[in-house]
Amino acid sequence: MNLILLSPDDIEHDHLARVRDPRRVTHLREVHRARVGDAMTLGVAGGGIGRGELLSLDADEARFAIDTLDQAPPPALPVHLVLALPRPRMLARTLEHVTALGVKQLTLLHTRRVEKSYWQSPELSPAKIQAHLTLGLEQARDTVLPDVTLARGFRPFVEDHLPELLAARRGLLAHPGMPISCPRGIDAPTLLLVGPEGGFIEWEVERLLAAGCEGIHLGPRILRVETAVTALLARLF
Amino acid sequence: MNLILLSPDDIEHDHLARVRDPRRVTHLREVHRARVGDAMTLGVAGGGIGRGELLSLDADEARFAIDTLDQAPPPALPVHLVLALPRPRMLARTLEHVTALGVKQLTLLHTRRVEKSYWQSPELSPAKIQAHLTLGLEQARDTVLPDVTLARGFRPFVEDHLPELLAARRGLLAHPGMPISCPRGIDAPTLLLVGPEGGFIEWEVERLLAAGCEGIHLGPRILRVETAVTALLARLF
Repeated sequence: MNLILLSPDDIEHDHLARVRDPRRVTHLREVHRARVGDAMTLGVAGGGIGRGELLSLDADEARFAIDTLDQAPPPALPVHLVLALPRPRMLARTLEHVTALGVKQLTLLHTRRVEKSYWQSPELSPAKIQAHLTLGLEQARDTVLPDVTLARGFRPFVEDHLPELLAARRGLLAHPGMPISCPRGIDAPTLLLVGPEGGFIEWEVERLLAAGCEGIHLGPRILRVETAVTALLARLF
Repeated sequence: MNLILLSPDDIEHDHLARVRDPRRVTHLREVHRARVGDAMTLGVAGGGIGRGELLSLDADEARFAIDTLDQAPPPALPVHLVLALPRPRMLARTLEHVTALGVKQLTLLHTRRVEKSYWQSPELSPAKIQAHLTLGLEQARDTVLPDVTLARGFRPFVEDHLPELLAARRGLLAHPGMPISCPRGIDAPTLLLVGPEGGFIEWEVERLLAAGCEGIHLGPRILRVETAVTALLARLF
């Protein structure tokens, strides 16, 4: 928690914030071992970042004097990430990684090799997803939550949504064995598609290439989804 | 487990391997749902990679007919990674990530902000470390275990080992606020130093820069160690 992310509810008035949820209060007490008078980095959900001073901290509440919140959050990555739905534990970690790295548009996609049971996981509830996104923001000192959409069918995604997404973005399909090595340091708006463990099936690859995506690879090593996504984002942007 | 990594003990003779440890046998049965006759990727620890056929699989043993094991494992990264010892759970995941990415030299370093208790963790036993490295190799279809050394003192590391390590390598110190953005696609032998959560302290940064390291950063976002290490390796190589 490198930033205390304030929701509008936490802000009492321009100069005072009260944090009352047990997770953050406990973190301030037990991990930060914060003390009255400490200066800390604060941010407003969807807004600016700045400093504040801890006025009080007890078991139920932390109060902050807000100094300024006028810095912009760090820039977003120019990417819409389309990720085959990972298994629940990996989803949780991947949501935190990609949020910390600056992804702001994320689509979780069903593909042939995604186990159908993953779509029933409690990790997909809006509250759980938001909790992981928030951890990613707090880590990276960001304030802007990513938009997460669920695409429960591959074919409807490709037919109804992909053309529009690709109209304004370069489409990159990350898949082992594709002809081009992942490009470095591109700055253009990008749609990045990453398959599940086991990969996209051949028919899916063909459909995505036919829709206008370029196939890219990360070399001969097969990486876990969470490692591959971080490596792709770090190399591309 | 994208590769069945055979130890010399597993190899009965040139054409027959027996895998008897419960972890791999269970994985073959329950995750791969392997069947007699399946062709699978095999590799010999420290050696070549090839194909084999599953001859039998029961609760205690899998037997493989070895076809060929004459392919080279994927190339290593030209990096010696020096990582401030992470907390035990993050260490476990980071060992897997960096092994999968192709790191072959790893030093775990004590720094001021590493909690001393981490050095007592059972995760640091040679058997535990090897288990995580093996998972990384199996993931990435590699056969060559990384060398892991423990450097329990910062000053002895800097005074006694760093000069020699830097004699043949470009030293890069990854630390927030350093002047140069992390370079992309370098091919030269590199020593990459990554600090703990909370970072190196200023005195440590000064010592590492004075020893000849260049300070690099990954931008304004503060990343978890495991995310930062993957991002650095993917961008550098």
